[in-house]
Amino acid sequence: EPVLRIYCSAQAHSSVDKAVRIAGIGIKNLVKIKTRSDFSMDPEELSAAIEKDLKAGFKPCCVVATLGTTGVTAIDPLREIGEICHRHGVWLHVDAALAGTALILPEYRWMIEGREYIDSFVFNPHKWMFTNFDCSAYFVKDASALIRTFEILPEYLKTRTRGQVNDYRDWGVPLGRRFRALKLWCVIRMYGREGLIKMVRNHIEIARRLAEMISQEPDFEIVAPVTLNTVCFRYIPRNANSEETDKINEKLNHALNDSGKMYLTHTKVNGRYTLRMVTAQTNVTMEHVANSWNLIKETARNISPR
Amino acid sequence: EPVLRIYCSAQAHSSVDKAVRIAGIGIKNLVKIKTRSDFSMDPEELSAAIEKDLKAGFKPCCVVATLGTTGVTAIDPLREIGEICHRHGVWLHVDAALAGTALILPEYRWMIEGREYIDSFVFNPHKWMFTNFDCSAYFVKDASALIRTFEILPEYLKTRTRGQVNDYRDWGVPLGRRFRALKLWCVIRMYGREGLIKMVRNHIEIARRLAEMISQEPDFEIVAPVTLNTVCFRYIPRNANSEETDKINEKLNHALNDSGKMYLTHTKVNGRYTLRMVTAQTNVTMEHVANSWNLIKETARNISPR
Repeated sequence: EPVLRIYCSAQAHSSVDKAVRIAGIGIKNLVKIKTRSDFSMDPEELSAAIEKDLKAGFKPCCVVATLGTTGVTAIDPLREIGEICHRHGVWLHVDAALAGTALILPEYRWMIEGREYIDSFVFNPHKWMFTNFDCSAYFVKDASALIRTFEILPEYLKTRTRGQVNDYRDWGVPLGRRFRALKLWCVIRMYGREGLIKMVRNHIEIARRLAEMISQEPDFEIVAPVTLNTVCFRYIPRNANSEETDKINEKLNHALNDSGKMYLTHTKVNGRYTLRMVTAQTNVTMEHVANSWNLIKETARNISPR
Repeated sequence: EPVLRIYCSAQAHSSVDKAVRIAGIGIKNLVKIKTRSDFSMDPEELSAAIEKDLKAGFKPCCVVATLGTTGVTAIDPLREIGEICHRHGVWLHVDAALAGTALILPEYRWMIEGREYIDSFVFNPHKWMFTNFDCSAYFVKDASALIRTFEILPEYLKTRTRGQVNDYRDWGVPLGRRFRALKLWCVIRMYGREGLIKMVRNHIEIARRLAEMISQEPDFEIVAPVTLNTVCFRYIPRNANSEETDKINEKLNHALNDSGKMYLTHTKVNGRYTLRMVTAQTNVTMEHVANSWNLIKETARNISPR
């Protein structure tokens, strides 16, 4: 049997690595495609990788495209990736864990242009749609592929409603399922489409304004495009080399989190320690973020005066 | 690489079949071991199956022993299975999904005799320990085996507490986890050890008394030993052959469930349609069960007068 190959961008979430290992495909068969300057998957690199694998006798199996990568919320170019998948008969999975929520905004529908190529799509209402953990929404074009994979029918699971309802136990790994749909329904019912749009749009606007404020400070830099609710930035003290700057940013992150007043996460962007502020908490306001930004500036300049 | 083989009893839960398929080991490498007359795994059959596989060049990998099978709550003989696993270096997993709860009763500790051989053990407090779905307790002898399998450490998951706390994301498939421990703690705190023992012991006593009542009726039969909280029985109308009896019992099951007054599940025992009454609901009383038993008798005799 030919060896299967999976493709995702170098910025894709670690869950892809984990899934490929657990599925028995093996981490060495996960091909990390280089990204463009905006950290989105480079479709030319993807196409080249698939062609190369085909020549080497591998079987390209699945591409995982990300809408909103974890580190910097980069958006992979869906239509171009979809066309490549379609050409080669490769499954296209879309990981829109966080950014999927933004698709309720008309001005963000561009992210899903080319959706006719998608075989499976996941987003997490528990991330940015105000629903308590856990709640993942999974869409699949051909449910029978799941059923062929997961269906097991011992006597004690035979029901009289078989064929009339979806037996979701046959669509995935677990047999039992919690009734997560109810809490999501409550959220949608409570806020309504217009309410959700207003809140999500506001979070994006707050991120945009935070990015503006950061840009105005000569000793800070924005290190990735701010498209959604995540702002990746670094403090750049004068006379510090790259390594020292990394150390100072790490120290800054810990000092801020230890203050008990805010909590920032970090990532690495082009190998450099980077702070992340995410403006997607349900009740976040511009005032919260402005106060945090003042605390960040003050703390940074106390740690390493410019 | 040698082909891995997994072993469980012919009465083990369908989740074993599903897991073996999903893990990529393949359902044809799951060996279902014949059971003894009490539906427990026959250790001599297990030993013979492993010896045969070794001769054929397979690699025996794991035995799944069940304490309390789903259909009839049979108890596999742990010590004898454990000795076989130990002799061949095979992983011993114990599925005590429901019956694990009974281990809090001194008079049921015999079920876990030979526990020193167990590599991993699971029981579900959501089944018979009064905790809302879902809550599975998983015990493992060597956590590092899990960590070697599941650990992935991207930059955005690096924490300052690494090595000081258990990062459970590295012990299993999902990255995020709900705080299930709290609800289990509340249950244990509320009832206390003595309270739990009293309730569980009462459920077992109710099942025993139900079995006694069923035995007294000449047109009903008990079809499996009643060890815990599950009573498997059939209605045996006069002058009906086995196939007709199956059909009548299925009709009886549906009539009872459609009444809205009770809900029974079914299984097959030795190929025959069998009703199951489980006396493990948190607040069940002898009166509930006696009333249900009267309804069962009445409904059965109306469907098919003896």
